[in-house]
Amino acid sequence: MNKTEFQEISPSEFFYRNRDLAGFSNPSRALYSTIRELVENSLDACDLFSIYPKVYVRLTGLENQSKEDVKEYTLVISDNGSGIPNEKIPLALGKVFFGSKFKLKQSRGMFGMGGTMSMLYAQITTNKPITITSSVDGKTYHRYRMIIDIEKNQPTVLDYSSGDSKEWRGTRIELNLMGDYLRSASRIVEYFNKIALVTPYAEIAFLDPMDRLFVYAKGTDQMPTPPTEVLPHPLGVDVEGLRRAIRSWKGGGIRSFLIKNFHRVGPGIADKFLEYVMIDPTRDPRTLSSEEMASLTNSLQTFGKFLPPDGRCLSPLGREILLTGINKELNPEFADVAIRAPAAYGGFPFVVEVGLAYGGQIKSDKLLLFRFANRIPLLYDEGSDIAWKVLMEDIDWNHYKVPMESPLVIITHICSTKIPYKTVGKEYISDRPEIERELKNAIKEVLRGLSLYLGKKSSMENIQRKYNIYAKYLPLIAQFSTSLADRKRKPNIQLLLGEGSLDVFT
Amino acid sequence: MNKTEFQEISPSEFFYRNRDLAGFSNPSRALYSTIRELVENSLDACDLFSIYPKVYVRLTGLENQSKEDVKEYTLVISDNGSGIPNEKIPLALGKVFFGSKFKLKQSRGMFGMGGTMSMLYAQITTNKPITITSSVDGKTYHRYRMIIDIEKNQPTVLDYSSGDSKEWRGTRIELNLMGDYLRSASRIVEYFNKIALVTPYAEIAFLDPMDRLFVYAKGTDQMPTPPTEVLPHPLGVDVEGLRRAIRSWKGGGIRSFLIKNFHRVGPGIADKFLEYVMIDPTRDPRTLSSEEMASLTNSLQTFGKFLPPDGRCLSPLGREILLTGINKELNPEFADVAIRAPAAYGGFPFVVEVGLAYGGQIKSDKLLLFRFANRIPLLYDEGSDIAWKVLMEDIDWNHYKVPMESPLVIITHICSTKIPYKTVGKEYISDRPEIERELKNAIKEVLRGLSLYLGKKSSMENIQRKYNIYAKYLPLIAQFSTSLADRKRKPNIQLLLGEGSLDVFT
Repeated sequence: MNKTEFQEISPSEFFYRNRDLAGFSNPSRALYSTIRELVENSLDACDLFSIYPKVYVRLTGLENQSKEDVKEYTLVISDNGSGIPNEKIPLALGKVFFGSKFKLKQSRGMFGMGGTMSMLYAQITTNKPITITSSVDGKTYHRYRMIIDIEKNQPTVLDYSSGDSKEWRGTRIELNLMGDYLRSASRIVEYFNKIALVTPYAEIAFLDPMDRLFVYAKGTDQMPTPPTEVLPHPLGVDVEGLRRAIRSWKGGGIRSFLIKNFHRVGPGIADKFLEYVMIDPTRDPRTLSSEEMASLTNSLQTFGKFLPPDGRCLSPLGREILLTGINKELNPEFADVAIRAPAAYGGFPFVVEVGLAYGGQIKSDKLLLFRFANRIPLLYDEGSDIAWKVLMEDIDWNHYKVPMESPLVIITHICSTKIPYKTVGKEYISDRPEIERELKNAIKEVLRGLSLYLGKKSSMENIQRKYNIYAKYLPLIAQFSTSLADRKRKPNIQLLLGEGSLDVFT
Repeated sequence: MNKTEFQEISPSEFFYRNRDLAGFSNPSRALYSTIRELVENSLDACDLFSIYPKVYVRLTGLENQSKEDVKEYTLVISDNGSGIPNEKIPLALGKVFFGSKFKLKQSRGMFGMGGTMSMLYAQITTNKPITITSSVDGKTYHRYRMIIDIEKNQPTVLDYSSGDSKEWRGTRIELNLMGDYLRSASRIVEYFNKIALVTPYAEIAFLDPMDRLFVYAKGTDQMPTPPTEVLPHPLGVDVEGLRRAIRSWKGGGIRSFLIKNFHRVGPGIADKFLEYVMIDPTRDPRTLSSEEMASLTNSLQTFGKFLPPDGRCLSPLGREILLTGINKELNPEFADVAIRAPAAYGGFPFVVEVGLAYGGQIKSDKLLLFRFANRIPLLYDEGSDIAWKVLMEDIDWNHYKVPMESPLVIITHICSTKIPYKTVGKEYISDRPEIERELKNAIKEVLRGLSLYLGKKSSMENIQRKYNIYAKYLPLIAQFSTSLADRKRKPNIQLLLGEGSLDVFT
């Protein structure tokens, strides 16, 4: 053989072969990934449309199985979200790179692959079809039983039916997969606990294979405002993006082209920029040569006077929702939240929110970090995450007089139109100096709050201790003085003790 | 808007949008990734065909550029490999998921995306076409100037020419890209140093933008035997794989089906397995139902009596080549190599080779880890890699009396048909207990060797010290004794000192 052989594979085939990349590496990890991907799709289908989410998950082991750890499970997940239009149902879950997440808008999903990867994994481990039922109008449901043709990257529908949805709108997915619940149970329950913390406006229930029912009730009527889609920011644009915008430009000068195609480019900035690059504002961008496009893209990066992206396309939780979640799920003695103003990295806007919970029901004897990105918990690879790095390297813990061995939880939440994940499995966030800076400042802010609280608490305790000493010895002194002075009536020491109030000492 | 919008994107589009996933996150990292992906393609094109590789790389900054760190560079890379057949040239580098790396065979490339990602990145940063020249026969070359249509995932050829290749066979790629050499230079040079260490049979030259020429001469005529493609091992098979094998089965009993389709399944094992699953050996596998296929796949995992995959499909370096590389590039005082027998994880065979180099030209004052997988260096995310974990957690350094603060380099090399990378960017290897065990044993072996060497060296030094004392005082004693005995002639102490040899004392 002295010849290289070439072949083409489909996107499904690629991810089928390299499923480690998407977090489906073994039966324990894959069970966790399947549940989380589908839960996150359900939540996206709700709160992108301002619907209070109700998500129900049931995982059941098949009966009469061997005693092996790896078993076949049936997973059912249903929601009350916006539903999938009938004609899109098979493709939405049966074709890699077909989806609704390819927009410049904050959502839990980022790669648009979670649903299809779950189907793919279920199919290759059990060889059974998947059933998807959905209704967009609360009147009719559509149900598909299907498998994925991996080599063609196409769904094959085995069965279709429809009927009266009886006012139910949403999506229900049922699939069979091989999984290892024994090894993944604690991680999956941790996942639900954390998604409940960050989504207190949702009702979530999970029935596990041991018949344990985990219910997370709705804790607030407040929901974050859904994000809106935005134009690309000039700093995030490359030649390809510029070429596409020019191709769909119907005509007119480059000045109005810039204003209409880019985020935060108004007439004033457009004028200044065109002066900087020395292009006639009335020139039609379709007349730009290849070289001119490249140099224009370059100038977008170096101009330096564009306004930073604004936060309209983002949907942070806000102080009240995050505090509700923390108090509801952690029940601490002290909680605080810091929210930073929108910032940007490479043209993508982001917001950092940080929560802190201390004491109370928190039983850990050391600092815990709960990481979230676009409202999803990140549970793996903590040590590689930027937030961990900030806690370990950027924070001077002595300064805040808060030992890391406290019953302390730090909650970090990053919202962005593009979270810089390092893997398709969405496990951790890579180092970006802009994000690091915002995280650091937010963490410092909540630590200052805790430090103040603890300082006050400790001086209160000091005062109480002193008070207790006075309260114990004053009567004895009064008694002694009375007998020494040979009086009958003791002085009224209650006036000195201030009826138990601490005010007199402060 | 109360409707979810769906869209399909092409594979090129997916990786264009998510280029962080493949290691093209910023101009410094992308420059490094481009060079490494193309160098590795070149080396694969040579040694998979037993050709001594000659790879030349030239990176030049364009003239008259601004003083910014991010500049446009021209990258030229040429090799003497097997070449790309004429009709495949545009697709091989202009279409994501089209390639030659989708086989069960060890190669540097794993995902078949490096070349196309490099083209993609070059194009979106400079808007210039790429030029590829290749010859498979040493007679005619074919040259294409092309760009990639990202939305269609198709190459667009702008220009084609051909001519007399004047006995040159191989591939030459020329492209322009934006990069930050200032920030990536040390990493790129480190990459070349390490690839030279692990490929001592190659001739590699790199001319950098500062006109520094790095030449790595060929240091040995030995080359590893090229790997052969193998059938899938029963432990690595899922239902999809089984279904495909059955679909292309021309007829005959399941016994011969198993023997012909799976690695290391001979008649004896096939019989035992069919007895275990209670299937008639003459039954045609095409008559298996969906459920039977699933349960058969399951039984392949649980049977437990298949032979482990053999190492034929692997191509480890071997002791001599690795030692040559170490001595040539590191020039240490002491070097050793340990090579483990082939092992397997989840049906994929692998071999671990570990080298150790100590002292000499190694100037570091602490332990360095050089990680390699299928003959490529891994430079990023060391702390997340399995080899680092083994060094830090599994090795009892006191036992070997080798402090970690020694001028010590540990070289780990893992060969497999499937390296369990965690990212498409091939940065680090995930935890697999089977790989961890082999690494641990190999590292222990080389550390034992070093420990013995150091022990012997230190007792040699003790002996030398004693000898020096004797050599100093014996003449004085001889002198003194002679005068004391009132003799004229001193005794011949050279007999005692053994003419400077240490033999008399050992």
